[in-house]
Order: sequence, then structure tokens, then C-alpha cells
Amino acid sequence: MQLTNRQCRLAARPEGLPKPSDWDFVDAAVAAIADGEFLVRVEYLSIDAAMRGWMTPVRSYIPPVEIGDVMRAAAMGRVIQSRHLDFQVGDYVNGAFGVQEYAVSDGEGVRVVDLALGSPATHLGVLGLSGLTAYFGILDVGKPQPGQTVVVSGAAGSVGSIAGQIARLQECRTIGIAGGPAKCDWLVKELGFDAAIDYKSQNVRRQLRELAPQGVDVFLDNVGGDVLDDVLVRLAPHARVVISGAISQYNTTEGMRGPANYMQLLVSRASMTGFVIFDYAKRYREALTQLAGWLDSGALHAREDVVEADIDDFPDVLLSLFRGANTGKLAMALPAALGNEGAVA
Amino acid sequence: MQLTNRQCRLAARPEGLPKPSDWDFVDAAVAAIADGEFLVRVEYLSIDAAMRGWMTPVRSYIPPVEIGDVMRAAAMGRVIQSRHLDFQVGDYVNGAFGVQEYAVSDGEGVRVVDLALGSPATHLGVLGLSGLTAYFGILDVGKPQPGQTVVVSGAAGSVGSIAGQIARLQECRTIGIAGGPAKCDWLVKELGFDAAIDYKSQNVRRQLRELAPQGVDVFLDNVGGDVLDDVLVRLAPHARVVISGAISQYNTTEGMRGPANYMQLLVSRASMTGFVIFDYAKRYREALTQLAGWLDSGALHAREDVVEADIDDFPDVLLSLFRGANTGKLAMALPAALGNEGAVA
Repeated sequence: MQLTNRQCRLAARPEGLPKPSDWDFVDAAVAAIADGEFLVRVEYLSIDAAMRGWMTPVRSYIPPVEIGDVMRAAAMGRVIQSRHLDFQVGDYVNGAFGVQEYAVSDGEGVRVVDLALGSPATHLGVLGLSGLTAYFGILDVGKPQPGQTVVVSGAAGSVGSIAGQIARLQECRTIGIAGGPAKCDWLVKELGFDAAIDYKSQNVRRQLRELAPQGVDVFLDNVGGDVLDDVLVRLAPHARVVISGAISQYNTTEGMRGPANYMQLLVSRASMTGFVIFDYAKRYREALTQLAGWLDSGALHAREDVVEADIDDFPDVLLSLFRGANTGKLAMALPAALGNEGAVA
Repeated sequence: MQLTNRQCRLAARPEGLPKPSDWDFVDAAVAAIADGEFLVRVEYLSIDAAMRGWMTPVRSYIPPVEIGDVMRAAAMGRVIQSRHLDFQVGDYVNGAFGVQEYAVSDGEGVRVVDLALGSPATHLGVLGLSGLTAYFGILDVGKPQPGQTVVVSGAAGSVGSIAGQIARLQECRTIGIAGGPAKCDWLVKELGFDAAIDYKSQNVRRQLRELAPQGVDVFLDNVGGDVLDDVLVRLAPHARVVISGAISQYNTTEGMRGPANYMQLLVSRASMTGFVIFDYAKRYREALTQLAGWLDSGALHAREDVVEADIDDFPDVLLSLFRGANTGKLAMALPAALGNEGAVA
């Protein structure tokens, strides 16, 4: 039986928000696997702000997706054919399988996951790159001490919601910045943040003055733009700003905007540091064990926003991320996931 | 005899470059000193880019100069009356005496200096806050390792010229960015920089690609703006950007411009850190001993641009700094300095 592989390919470099004409949809044949390869039926796609960066050919931590290539995506799927010793038919695997229904892999960067620890979407979120980014960003780069004040932007997103909870588990005063009262309520009432600021209706700078009168010791920023500038003027002495993302700037057509208040780093004797999660690969196991333990004990709450959709819906789901429509980890469940025992709603 | 004290006071908050109407000149009477005070006849004024920041009422590391106050300035002078046990008539002293001919002091922040170690202007430069800023900025914040590449902007200025030489003494490859061929020649031929980039006539980004093919490990920035953005895209992995100043942005009327390429901190796993020299007060002696030793052995070259001028000329001398007219430390020699044995041309 010849399988047909629906693929979403990059057709053009977007300017601003990706348009329909920036994508191509193709029905490709699935190639036969060679020795050392296996075939994955993709069930879940991780929808991430970083995808926008991968579409742009600038100097980055990873090469851009080339025009004509399948769009890159972290994903979960089932091994359905294998000529690889480490991957068996039936294994549930996590890897960069791309926005397509089937992927051939040689195992590079692929992990077999245990669905007893969490749903497939949880393995893309708390137990995936989002959780790892939050874990190392807060603990290794931010280095918060008990009693310090930690602020997280994009706090209702996949990285931010976990980062804030990890800060809370370090006995830090934790403040989330998010868009809208529903997200802010969720942060405080469900996730145990000490406070939340709705940047859409509140003055972030004024709120921080009230909520963090001693200043902000650690700021994990997923947003950039005005929010970053507002937090910079409220830094405590020797504060650490951790650069995790800049979602407010990824789709600008007027050029990236830098933080106008960056000289506050001098005033506050503070630092702003970037990091790339792949550098921590040797410590993933340590982090995932800790994250799974917190999940299991109820110390950490995971939330996924799983959209049932076809490959052809990917562009719209990606745009919903940039509208801030999701709370928690945004993922797409492909038709292959439905009715599958691994699919936990 | 009643002394008359010519003073330059802040009359208004400038917008953009300070205008004549932003200053007031006053002939004040010199008050009698009380117990625990002494009177200084000011001979040399340090002219610094930071002065522009002191004129603006924003959150900073030091309170702004208030309207009607004597303009703040680091200065050198002679004690001419004393009721303070630690300061004797005839002592040559360094302190924030302000833009005026006479200053009454209680000794707070004042050091007696040894003119055998260097001229008064040298004590405002290499052996003053400029040298201390360069020393701790490069060594403590930048932490360069032998063989690494260090870039300094404002490299022909008071801090930059010393910072680059200190980096060279750490066996680093040292590249200066300065304005104009004369300054660039001086950096390479006199100060021993490995290379210099003239930002006025050369493409900084392209030059850095050639001169620092492995990337920039440490960048001490005195300038901000385009230069900062250009260096950010050439950072080596785990680079340290040291924020010392942002002279290109101090007189803007369009709001401070942040570094649009700041996400390169993430790409390069790099950090950008601010510091304030006053935090290192307990280690000044260590640094000054080292700097004086290097000066004495000829390992470090000092250059001062000393302008003979009256208090009333201060506004023009300050503007010359922002035009980039000086090479090395810019200082004003007041009439009181002339013919004085302490005055070493």
C-alpha cells in the first residue's frame, strides 16, 4: 500500500504575519526506509513562536527552513515501520518531524516517550522543549534565590506558565504578565502565581511598582517590546534578565525594536542573558525527571490547548498563537491521533 | 579677603544638546568653613559624557543635578583652608567639586593624590574614574581570556583607550572602534591595538567579519546605537557585552534607541551586563596601584586633552566632547592651574 504524505512546505519568506501564499501543500509519496531508519506517523504538532524565526534567513541558533522544505515542527508520533535497532514499531516518539503526516527518521534527536508520564501534548509541553526551556531558563540562567521576586512575561504561554511555577517552587514571589483577565485569573488561582498583570488593560510599570516594591530580581522574557522596557525600569540591583523569546517582535514589518531602556542594566548593575535549550541536551534527563516528579505530585500544573486539525489548518493555528488565543501549550492533534489510545484530551 | 566663586549652575533641563540657556553663571561668595570642612581651589575639571545623564531626571545610579544647583563634575584642586584632620592646606585632592572655582568639602569621596604618579589630568583620567571604569569593566565584568578577541567602542576616549590597552595586557586580540583616521592611527600605532575601525568611513559589521572571524568575545561599549547593533551580530558564543556608556544616545530628542539586534544575545548565548564604578570603591586602591604600575613601566599610555578655559567656557568644552573632538581624557584647566607646580602639560 502506497501511503500519501500530506505536507506543509514553506513557499515564500513572509513579511510580517505569514500569509496563505507563504505556504504550499503537497501530497508526497512516502519513501521506503533504509537500514538505520524508521517511519513515524505524526499525531501531534507543537505550535511554537520560534517557528516564525525559523522562516527568516537571519543569523540564528539553527539554520532557517529553506524555501520548498517541509516546515520544521517539534512533533509526537508512532513508529509504524522500523529498520533501526533503537526504535520499535509501536514506540511513541518525540522529534522534529515537521508539519507533515509521515516522517522518515534516522533517530537523530528523537526520544521514545512514556505515555504513563503524560499525554502526547504534555510531552510537547511540560515534558518537552517548553518545560526544558522554562527549567534551565529559570534555574540555570535566572538563578533565583528564595524570597526574591521573579517576573515572567508570556506567563500564560507554554514556557511562561511552567517558568513561573518553577520560580514559585523555589519559594520566590512570582508575578506573571499576560493578556486578558482570564489568563491572569488562571495564573493566580490555578497555578499559584502571587500576582498577575494584564498588559492589555493595566499599566505594567505602575503595577510592578506596587507588586514588586523592592524591584524585580529575575525576569524571564518571552515577549520583548513594551513589556521588556517596562520591566527594565523596575529591576532590583544585580537583577538577571533571561531572554527566552520576543513574540511581540517576530512579525513586525518595521524592523525589530530593541529595548530602549537597556541602560537600566547599568543603573541596576544587572545582566541580560540569552540561552539556547539545545546546549543543555546532556542534562535533559535530570530536568525531565524533576519536571515529571513535580507533575506527578501535583506541584506543577500542565495545561495544553490541543486543536484537532488537518495539516492544511496549520497556518491558521500558527496565527492563533500570535493572536494570543491559547492558554498553556498550543498543539495540533492530527486525524491520526484521534481514537488512538495515546490521545488524552 | 572675600573670595568670589564663579559657578556654572544648571538653569533648565536640556532637550537634545545643552543650549546656552540651560546654564546660569553666578558669582557667589565663598562661605566660611566649619569644623570638619576644608576649602578647595579647583584647578582641573573632568569633562565626561556621563554629565549629560546627570542633567536628566530619570532613574539612574546617582540623583540628577537639580535646577539651580552647581553642575556636578569630578575635579582636582588644592586645599587652601582646612578645619578637617585628614586634609591639610597644600594637599592636592580629587573629588566631585563641581563646575566652580572653589568648593567646600567635608571629605566625603575626596582623595589626596600624589602628583609624582601623574599630572592632575592623569589623576582625572587613567588614575581617576576613567581608568577605574576601564579596569573593572574589562577585568571584572568582561573577564577576557588570553587569546580572546576584545572590542572597545569609543576607543579613543578616556575609558575606551585604557580599556583596550588593559585587554592587550591580558594578551587579547584588541580592536578599537573610533571616529576618524587620526584616532584609529593613534590606537594602533601608539597604544598597540591590533586593529581599529573608523565607524565614520567604514562598515563596522563587515570590518568585524574580517578582523574577528571567530567572533567577539568581549565588547566594552561606550557608544550604543548602530555600533552596538553591529557588534551584537558578530558575538562569539558565550560573549560578554559590558555596558559602560551610550554616548550616541545621550542627546537624542527622539527617545533612547535600544539595540534592535538584542536577540543575538540568545543566538550567541551571550550576556549584556551593566556596572557602576562606585560599587568597586573598596578595590580602588588595588586598581590604582596596578594602573600606576603599568603607567610607570610604559605598558600603559595615557593621553589627556587639556583645554585651558574659564568656568564660563564649560558649556562649549562639554559640547566638544559630544562632537568627538578630543582624543584621550578631556579635561579643563582653570586659570588657577596655570603656573601652578602641579600643572604638568
